[in-house]
Amino acid sequence: MSTTEVRDEPYHANGIPPPNLDLPYPDSPGEITASLLKLTELAPNPRTRFVFKNLISKLHEFISETNITTEEWRSGIEFLTSLNEALTPGPRGQELNLLSDAFGVTALLERLNNPRIGNATESSALGPFFTEDAPDFLFGESIASEGIGEYMFVEGRVLTTGGEPIPGAVIETWEAFGTGLYDIQNAERTGPECRGRLRTDEEGKYGYRAIVPVPYAIPEDDPVCRLLQSLGRPAVQSGHVHVIVHAPGFHKLVTMLYPEDDPYFSTSVAQGVKKSLIVKLTEIDDETDARKRGFQKGTKFKLLNYDFVLLTEDEWAGART
Amino acid sequence: MSTTEVRDEPYHANGIPPPNLDLPYPDSPGEITASLLKLTELAPNPRTRFVFKNLISKLHEFISETNITTEEWRSGIEFLTSLNEALTPGPRGQELNLLSDAFGVTALLERLNNPRIGNATESSALGPFFTEDAPDFLFGESIASEGIGEYMFVEGRVLTTGGEPIPGAVIETWEAFGTGLYDIQNAERTGPECRGRLRTDEEGKYGYRAIVPVPYAIPEDDPVCRLLQSLGRPAVQSGHVHVIVHAPGFHKLVTMLYPEDDPYFSTSVAQGVKKSLIVKLTEIDDETDARKRGFQKGTKFKLLNYDFVLLTEDEWAGART
Repeated sequence: MSTTEVRDEPYHANGIPPPNLDLPYPDSPGEITASLLKLTELAPNPRTRFVFKNLISKLHEFISETNITTEEWRSGIEFLTSLNEALTPGPRGQELNLLSDAFGVTALLERLNNPRIGNATESSALGPFFTEDAPDFLFGESIASEGIGEYMFVEGRVLTTGGEPIPGAVIETWEAFGTGLYDIQNAERTGPECRGRLRTDEEGKYGYRAIVPVPYAIPEDDPVCRLLQSLGRPAVQSGHVHVIVHAPGFHKLVTMLYPEDDPYFSTSVAQGVKKSLIVKLTEIDDETDARKRGFQKGTKFKLLNYDFVLLTEDEWAGART
Repeated sequence: MSTTEVRDEPYHANGIPPPNLDLPYPDSPGEITASLLKLTELAPNPRTRFVFKNLISKLHEFISETNITTEEWRSGIEFLTSLNEALTPGPRGQELNLLSDAFGVTALLERLNNPRIGNATESSALGPFFTEDAPDFLFGESIASEGIGEYMFVEGRVLTTGGEPIPGAVIETWEAFGTGLYDIQNAERTGPECRGRLRTDEEGKYGYRAIVPVPYAIPEDDPVCRLLQSLGRPAVQSGHVHVIVHAPGFHKLVTMLYPEDDPYFSTSVAQGVKKSLIVKLTEIDDETDARKRGFQKGTKFKLLNYDFVLLTEDEWAGART
């Protein structure tokens, strides 16, 4: 539309004419909040109405109770604007996901949406670094190139809650390099790295070579890193390997495993380190063991042994009602 | 930093090592919120601590009370990400300001930060469309080019709360074109349009030619417009002229004037239409009157007469304590 063409009628952008609402003038903070809640009654979808009314109430309470100044609010707007201009290459929405992490929103959502059920493996957030292009690997193959981290072998089984093996379960796994960055945070990425898709064998077993996950920091030029600094908080996530496990008839498991003895568990940016997901890494320095798992002669490595326990769809649905 | 160089030590991004905090694992929603509040105690600045603790509490209450699903949160992240990718040309942060408008935050902040004091003119939000490059005009000159809207003449005085004229007060004024868009929303803007800076004369009088403000809509391809649509709300702001008035020794007034009989007062996106800022436009169809105000022979125009009343800095400070 040209800015020089004069309109005769005000437009009804989005097709909604002024409703017949006689709301008070914004003379007091309470009237402003009340008017917004009344406007939100117009939303046709009941869930939308419920969610937005709660959001508006909490947001207005925050502003009124803290008496936010215009300058403080402006610096908040400035901060949120800077998020999408952050330099780190990576997926769309990554910065806002990181902000959700930093304020416990990711952990809280995860906990509310995925309660612990029986002896099933607990879940964890998906995170922004999952991609669809992980290549297929066979038992014992390596998801990581040489020289990007310390050797690790991950092995175990996929089981039902009754302890029966689940053959043919698909395991998708991904992790950061030893530098603490994922492949997609490299602007020159040419293909997947440190990502793989495997299947369990007849006995429900899986095994693959990977690298030891390290605690990783948010890059120092990132706005969320600077925000955490102003809050006196470390900008580090505890080291972890991401794993998705799915099999027909079973509820899809999205989780992470955290090697023990990480100094950042309590203060990890995402606040998502569940106790049951902390794993022991066993240092192996045995030629036979190393060869058996495809490492070169004399190679030391760390062994991560973990059995994933899946809920059937029925068990999942039953526990949620 | 290269993604292929292996780090020996986890970095302490932002220079803050893991503090000696032994927080519980995130087993329950309540523990997650409590841990975040404890982490926020690390913030060195007391105001920061106070504001962020309140923000985190309200945000977590919102999530827990509404039981937000992972998909709903993801669509929120998606929405916020789309804001900075919106097509409308304009100032940085404009989209987030618009979102603040749409949820009454702008109006609430304005009301909390600028209470009504005595007979002084009430204030209103600055909005995102102020620019520093408004040209100077003399009494009776026009801030608007021909053909971009209906003729209007704005005149009145700038006064003290005791009714004394304030000579040499600076008036900065800006408004949208008759199309409902500001000059800076035109990607091909070559200079200021519909913006001007004037000074009151010895009797505190000012006067300038402008155009009648129209209710204007958020462009239909804007994410906030689509959000309002899903909420059943019109995406229209009531028509208004922005005015800033300042003079040495007086508290700077930032306000807007709204022509009466606008169907969008109650539902105006920004929810900022204060009753005392609604003004009557008088239709003038008199050759002498028109000539006197610089319009061409026989031109009809609308007259907006408004006296701005400024607080002294002392009156402002006194009322705020």
